[in-house]
Amino acid sequence: MASDIYTKYTAFKQDDLLAKIRTSVSAKRFSHILAVQKTAVILAKRFGGDVEKASIAGLIHDYAKECSDEELLRVIYENNLDKEIIGFGNNIWHGVAGTILIEKELGVVDAEILQAVSVHTTGSDNMSLLDKILYVADFIEPNRRFSGVKKARELAEVDLDKTVKYETKHTLLKLVEKEIKVYPKTIDTYNKYVAS
Amino acid sequence: MASDIYTKYTAFKQDDLLAKIRTSVSAKRFSHILAVQKTAVILAKRFGGDVEKASIAGLIHDYAKECSDEELLRVIYENNLDKEIIGFGNNIWHGVAGTILIEKELGVVDAEILQAVSVHTTGSDNMSLLDKILYVADFIEPNRRFSGVKKARELAEVDLDKTVKYETKHTLLKLVEKEIKVYPKTIDTYNKYVAS
Repeated sequence: MASDIYTKYTAFKQDDLLAKIRTSVSAKRFSHILAVQKTAVILAKRFGGDVEKASIAGLIHDYAKECSDEELLRVIYENNLDKEIIGFGNNIWHGVAGTILIEKELGVVDAEILQAVSVHTTGSDNMSLLDKILYVADFIEPNRRFSGVKKARELAEVDLDKTVKYETKHTLLKLVEKEIKVYPKTIDTYNKYVAS
Repeated sequence: MASDIYTKYTAFKQDDLLAKIRTSVSAKRFSHILAVQKTAVILAKRFGGDVEKASIAGLIHDYAKECSDEELLRVIYENNLDKEIIGFGNNIWHGVAGTILIEKELGVVDAEILQAVSVHTTGSDNMSLLDKILYVADFIEPNRRFSGVKKARELAEVDLDKTVKYETKHTLLKLVEKEIKVYPKTIDTYNKYVAS
């Protein structure tokens, strides 16, 4: 893949973008990020998605994951994002508020990429192919270790929608078993791709 | 308990109300209804609730449960109820649309009773004591047979809020395991009483 996809979709050359992201997160998360990027490219090739956008979306999706709560809350307030989000913590904030930071600090303006980043944790009831690719890549990238990931990887070999269904059901069950708050958009995703 | 609670809260005397409800549902459901009424009275006495309202709420809560889909949809449309409800089937309709029929056909106007009936399946993020009593009574009445009901009954001996939490988590897990649609209000209940 040509390296100029970085300047096409962001304000940085490849090396500068990688350096900027590397300094924003821990080494472990940077490894996860690169693995999501590779997995997203594989899925895009497999299911006819936009390989360049999948690559960039994978690389930037967790840019805001290690921002402080204070910084993400500031972004939420200053940009008049839906206040409903406030009770749900970093796990929800980093995608939705993260797109604001990604646009501002990385110069990403492509609406499809920003949307995929925005819903990469929750999904939505109207997921594009790119949304599904990033959502699944984040779940199955090779560093992931959890009961069920093998089944998810097998599904992702052949059927992206079945993987979205499996991931959504699996994630929701884990959240409820652990008594963690469920963001309403996650239920929209469940009602559309699991229970419909 | 004085039999005049029936004329106090409904348009019927006790015998007439019982006959009206009996002819609206199957024998099995009528047995369930009487068991919910008894259980709601026990819970109201145990936790300091309004015993009369608990009794009436238990008796009328499933009045619309065996209405046809066509009839409940007609009620939803004619009364401009939230159209979001339409995708969720009788299990959600019979509580929300049921309160309209209960008000019209049984003459119940008490707002607390109607609210308890409205949310008896889903709960809400702001449940009154009466809401909790009916929600739990419907879950633990003696005819119920399911894995977990013994635990719920034990909790209901001592702590109503812990029973609401247990019931909500149990119900949500079952819905997701069976891939049944989850009404958003159920997640409001979960986020308030389980995950908070």
